[in-house]
Amino acid sequence: MTSDIEQYRVQAEPYYQAQGREIALYEAAYRKRLPVMVKGPTGCGKSRFVEYMAWKLGKPLITVACNEDMTASDLVGRYLLEAGGTRWLDGPLTTAARIGAICYLDEIVEARQDTTVVIHPLTDHRRTLPLDKKGELIRAHPDFQLVISYNPGYQSLMKDLKQSTKQRFTAFDFDYPEAALETVILANETGLGEDMAGKLVKIAQTARNLKGHGLDEGISTRLMVYAALLIQDGIEATEACRMALVRPITDDPDIRETLDHAIDATFG
Amino acid sequence: MTSDIEQYRVQAEPYYQAQGREIALYEAAYRKRLPVMVKGPTGCGKSRFVEYMAWKLGKPLITVACNEDMTASDLVGRYLLEAGGTRWLDGPLTTAARIGAICYLDEIVEARQDTTVVIHPLTDHRRTLPLDKKGELIRAHPDFQLVISYNPGYQSLMKDLKQSTKQRFTAFDFDYPEAALETVILANETGLGEDMAGKLVKIAQTARNLKGHGLDEGISTRLMVYAALLIQDGIEATEACRMALVRPITDDPDIRETLDHAIDATFG
Amino acid sequence: MTSDIEQYRVQAEPYYQAQGREIALYEAAYRKRLPVMVKGPTGCGKSRFVEYMAWKLGKPLITVACNEDMTASDLVGRYLLEAGGTRWLDGPLTTAARIGAICYLDEIVEARQDTTVVIHPLTDHRRTLPLDKKGELIRAHPDFQLVISYNPGYQSLMKDLKQSTKQRFTAFDFDYPEAALETVILANETGLGEDMAGKLVKIAQTARNLKGHGLDEGISTRLMVYAALLIQDGIEATEACRMALVRPITDDPDIRETLDHAIDATFG
Amino acid sequence: MTSDIEQYRVQAEPYYQAQGREIALYEAAYRKRLPVMVKGPTGCGKSRFVEYMAWKLGKPLITVACNEDMTASDLVGRYLLEAGGTRWLDGPLTTAARIGAICYLDEIVEARQDTTVVIHPLTDHRRTLPLDKKGELIRAHPDFQLVISYNPGYQSLMKDLKQSTKQRFTAFDFDYPEAALETVILANETGLGEDMAGKLVKIAQTARNLKGHGLDEGISTRLMVYAALLIQDGIEATEACRMALVRPITDDPDIRETLDHAIDATFG
Amino acid sequence: MTSDIEQYRVQAEPYYQAQGREIALYEAAYRKRLPVMVKGPTGCGKSRFVEYMAWKLGKPLITVACNEDMTASDLVGRYLLEAGGTRWLDGPLTTAARIGAICYLDEIVEARQDTTVVIHPLTDHRRTLPLDKKGELIRAHPDFQLVISYNPGYQSLMKDLKQSTKQRFTAFDFDYPEAALETVILANETGLGEDMAGKLVKIAQTARNLKGHGLDEGISTRLMVYAALLIQDGIEATEACRMALVRPITDDPDIRETLDHAIDATFG
Amino acid sequence: MTSDIEQYRVQAEPYYQAQGREIALYEAAYRKRLPVMVKGPTGCGKSRFVEYMAWKLGKPLITVACNEDMTASDLVGRYLLEAGGTRWLDGPLTTAARIGAICYLDEIVEARQDTTVVIHPLTDHRRTLPLDKKGELIRAHPDFQLVISYNPGYQSLMKDLKQSTKQRFTAFDFDYPEAALETVILANETGLGEDMAGKLVKIAQTARNLKGHGLDEGISTRLMVYAALLIQDGIEATEACRMALVRPITDDPDIRETLDHAIDATFG
Repeated sequence: MTSDIEQYRVQAEPYYQAQGREIALYEAAYRKRLPVMVKGPTGCGKSRFVEYMAWKLGKPLITVACNEDMTASDLVGRYLLEAGGTRWLDGPLTTAARIGAICYLDEIVEARQDTTVVIHPLTDHRRTLPLDKKGELIRAHPDFQLVISYNPGYQSLMKDLKQSTKQRFTAFDFDYPEAALETVILANETGLGEDMAGKLVKIAQTARNLKGHGLDEGISTRLMVYAALLIQDGIEATEACRMALVRPITDDPDIRETLDHAIDATFG
Repeated sequence: MTSDIEQYRVQAEPYYQAQGREIALYEAAYRKRLPVMVKGPTGCGKSRFVEYMAWKLGKPLITVACNEDMTASDLVGRYLLEAGGTRWLDGPLTTAARIGAICYLDEIVEARQDTTVVIHPLTDHRRTLPLDKKGELIRAHPDFQLVISYNPGYQSLMKDLKQSTKQRFTAFDFDYPEAALETVILANETGLGEDMAGKLVKIAQTARNLKGHGLDEGISTRLMVYAALLIQDGIEATEACRMALVRPITDDPDIRETLDHAIDATFG
Repeated sequence: MTSDIEQYRVQAEPYYQAQGREIALYEAAYRKRLPVMVKGPTGCGKSRFVEYMAWKLGKPLITVACNEDMTASDLVGRYLLEAGGTRWLDGPLTTAARIGAICYLDEIVEARQDTTVVIHPLTDHRRTLPLDKKGELIRAHPDFQLVISYNPGYQSLMKDLKQSTKQRFTAFDFDYPEAALETVILANETGLGEDMAGKLVKIAQTARNLKGHGLDEGISTRLMVYAALLIQDGIEATEACRMALVRPITDDPDIRETLDHAIDATFG
Repeated sequence: MTSDIEQYRVQAEPYYQAQGREIALYEAAYRKRLPVMVKGPTGCGKSRFVEYMAWKLGKPLITVACNEDMTASDLVGRYLLEAGGTRWLDGPLTTAARIGAICYLDEIVEARQDTTVVIHPLTDHRRTLPLDKKGELIRAHPDFQLVISYNPGYQSLMKDLKQSTKQRFTAFDFDYPEAALETVILANETGLGEDMAGKLVKIAQTARNLKGHGLDEGISTRLMVYAALLIQDGIEATEACRMALVRPITDDPDIRETLDHAIDATFG
Repeated sequence: MTSDIEQYRVQAEPYYQAQGREIALYEAAYRKRLPVMVKGPTGCGKSRFVEYMAWKLGKPLITVACNEDMTASDLVGRYLLEAGGTRWLDGPLTTAARIGAICYLDEIVEARQDTTVVIHPLTDHRRTLPLDKKGELIRAHPDFQLVISYNPGYQSLMKDLKQSTKQRFTAFDFDYPEAALETVILANETGLGEDMAGKLVKIAQTARNLKGHGLDEGISTRLMVYAALLIQDGIEATEACRMALVRPITDDPDIRETLDHAIDATFG
Repeated sequence: MTSDIEQYRVQAEPYYQAQGREIALYEAAYRKRLPVMVKGPTGCGKSRFVEYMAWKLGKPLITVACNEDMTASDLVGRYLLEAGGTRWLDGPLTTAARIGAICYLDEIVEARQDTTVVIHPLTDHRRTLPLDKKGELIRAHPDFQLVISYNPGYQSLMKDLKQSTKQRFTAFDFDYPEAALETVILANETGLGEDMAGKLVKIAQTARNLKGHGLDEGISTRLMVYAALLIQDGIEATEACRMALVRPITDDPDIRETLDHAIDATFG
């Protein structure tokens, strides 16, 4: 991996609206280089928060979208065949440890439980990463920090972090913002008027109340941004809401009717 | 992947008969570069619609038929061994992100749930694609858009998109066209007379009513086109219908008898 | 794959005895280049029919015996390491699409459901085959046609073609020939007298009646040819029948006794 | 595979004692080049019979011990990387088809059901073997014949030959020889006196009667040969029998006691 | 693996507070080169103890974080392709056996049961390691010792060490230290006052009593160190405890309330 | 594999105390080159016996620790890429067959059932090993013999040798030695006084009686040797016994209490 540190800089300040004391607490965790776990439902802004903190702290950010097929080598690195033999290629975790980046493992719980073991020596007093295949023991750069994200609503008995992994992190809880705050966020991010934004929030709250009663998850802030953008583009609000807030998340006719009805009632 | 953009251009206007406001809505989604999910049963024209929109917008289209064995590397790219070492080969998703194509992941639900995670950073405000194995972070071309297709009738608990994927898309529902419209489509596409075309539609509707009562899916518009072409070629209608509309979709003797009877009654 | 088209020509007219109008119907399907599915029990002559049609139409035939371990690369092609780097090697499906052969995927249902997805773009109006790994989009030769075979008696819930695959084919049903016709076929193919051939057919029919009552499948025409050849070689009929018709298909003592008894009664 | 035909010749006449008309029947099957399946319990002499027939017919014999990890490539061949690029290496099945050997797939049912599909075109009128990865279609040498072995006592629903494979073979049933014959075989093969040999046969028959009542299989002729050799070497009969006939096949204390008791009674 | 012995030296004395006679007992086991197993819950100091003993004995330490995807080759070594052919690369276990290091297999139970078989010849009188793929039989350096860790609270029927592995080790039991001792440890390691440290210990003990009653594991000493560091950084104690002691280990609202209440009561 | 025969010689006479007539019986089996299976519980001396016999017979010994990931190639050999192309590398089984070693497959039942098929042609009258991938048929050296070990206490329905494998071996039963003999062995091997050794044996017998009543296996002779060595090193007997005899084999508090009590009573 070419460790061009500049490409990992967050270039512009990401829009981020704090919900509580999470910025100060993250700064303290970073000063002590404690590993951080951010928890919360889909699309509530976890990744945005990490991106914002990397920008605020002025540290490069390396993000890895975890998945079930990810091997330890995908994190740590591998030998690459080249003219004249093999060349070692650092993986993103190794690069982050070398250059002192914040390494963000997104949706860590998707990775195989036991693959996550490779992060252990980076998350205790050792702050080392053994590259077994290369015979090298990396001592992490002083700026390095590990952050993982985690959606508790997803977890099953089969897919959960092991206690020996959990007990290596400080944790932040996230949730969808309160109605007033979410209205502001929506208006700020899309330019939609606060009145209209408030109506979208109201619909989203209807859906979030259905979570566990036919819906796996409520409507995320991201989908509300989609609806707002379509409305800004001239699409009628009821059409935009069906297309952005309802059709993507459910095929259940009853739930659809309930949500469509809420949309019509809101904009009627 | 040689990114010869011209080979991805849709060369001639595909025949597409709109069923509602889907063209205008798609154009709005594209203007905002929102990711799009098209839903609907087998052979109802989802792929045709995407092809049509790519032609109408004048953008190249890269289609990937998803399957269970598809790895993230098949989408993103891999190193290729060559004389003088290895060479990186962009996958179709990477090519699309670089050249600004519409990338269409057909039957996304066939891909392994967790492989689909690689599209996440392309479908939020980041619009990036990290090539972990190459140490490169691609920022998508401004014209790039992601489209996926999805057949809700197929989904089981084991094979469904994750909420964290669904909540990244706006969605369009498709279904077989209404009888009058389907008759026109059939006549236009094959040259068969409208009277004959109407009879085929009538048979298809009999079959669609059996969906869930012994048939997994109804007769698609595509199979009706097959029957029409055989009739145009001089094959007797009852023979053509048996061969194109009944034999391919079921081995159940009762269902076959019902459908054969409908064919005989229609052309008798 | 060296695309030496001549090696795929069917060199001599295969012996084929039509059971109905299947030859004319296939010719119509080929004229319209419609994909064809041939269905029927083991050893009833499906492969022979396809071979015969390829000979009659004067087109090269490329046969692929499908199996569970077959990957998309086995059909489409792969890079091969050579002196001076890698060379792309077309798979049989790609070769067929390039040279305009009939590509016959035998026992398609053995292949992994999702591997079959690669044939989709070749079986609709697109008639294309994307070689994702090579970055090439093949437009099929005008003579190209796809044929698959399928044994409905085998299918389980776990192993069946997907509707989205089925709905891309016209279909032909095959079965064992009627007694008189099968007697003729047997006599023609082995030189056995019609009287003796008729007796073999009678035994086979006994076995076919046991299908579902202790036998998974009846005796195929192929096994009857074996018995006839052994009799022609001087082996006594009862011995030849036991060895060719009974021992291969069942280890159940009761079924064996029933069939042995039928053999003794027939030749007694 | 270096196709040095001589190394596959059976060099000396194997000891084989016919149990019935199997030699004449096999010769007829070979004259017509019909594929052969030999069935029977462990250690009853199936492999010996095939070896004997290869010797008698004067044809080379290529034996493959099938196993679950065997891929189609293990049978058919693969590319091998060499100085100056890759070289194709025929697998044993390909070699046999080229040089006209008898190819013996031992314990075929161990191989993955679907891997066995590759033998299909060699076992019908085509007698061809497509090397898909090489783009070559092999037409089998006139002397080539395929033989498989099969232990019906083993088969479960999960592991059985498919009907479409079974219906390509003539079949021979084998079993342990009758007592008088087995005594002769034992005496001839080990030099043990017929009286002593008869006692071993008596013990084996006790064990074979326990099959299905605590024993998975009876004592094979092979283990009896072991016992005879140990006795010939000076080991006491009761000790030799325990070590060669009882300890290897069961850990069940009751069965052991029954068999030990039979041994003591026989030699007491 | 470059066997640079110096990089495996523990450079500074790790902070370790003995809980009993484990130091003397370990020294005796090392003098006799007996393999050692350290057992205990997550984060109780097992790895710290091994690191301390390596430092005290002045031996290099090679740590391997075991995981389910670890193959025998990852422990033993593999061939690496290089300019001019392949080169053998020792794995960490082989390196340890050659240079006379203490080899510490952390969380051994994560490795596949049968992969652990490779350590067997190193843990009996043979003290050898056969490199089957290299045709070399290594005799371990006189200083070599094997140590494994093991968390009994984790084990299920599916994931446990085999008896034939267990019976090759002497074993040490670890647990969280007693309250007074843990208070000292916490104060020494973080500089937090003993009064404050004692309060953290009290909270941890509340959580440990909930183990098995809604919590999988109690709060580890490591998480208490995190809380202490945050408090030292100026974060309020109740906030630091929620973030470091509660949020990481549970999402259960009742358990969270219980623990939050204990925190408020302690610092109230 | 470099077949340096000397490295496989057992260099010094291993300490071995016969329990019965197993030495004479093994010698007879070896004279006839009969394959041998040694059965018995963990740590009862099976491997030691094989090592002793190899030393006594003056034959090289090649040991393979079997595991579930072992492929046929690991036993038989593989091609290795080198400068100038590939080179064949014999596996341990092939080496043993070539040089005339005793090949000892330890814990054979761990290997995949079907991988063990490769040993079949080496264990009947053929004494051959076909290297399918190399196109070579090895005839075993006259001194070659195959030995496998097997722990009947382990076997489940899922993991057992197939009858067709079992019926190729003569078998030896092993168990822990009787008390008097085990005392002698312990004293001889560690230098511990017979009185002390006898006490250890008494504790082990308590544990062995608990097998099946809370313990999976009793205490092996190997663990008793560990305890004796620790006592010889000056560790108190009760401490040494807890650490070497109890802690490694069980985490069950009741069983631990029973065993600790037996230790205290014995040395009290």
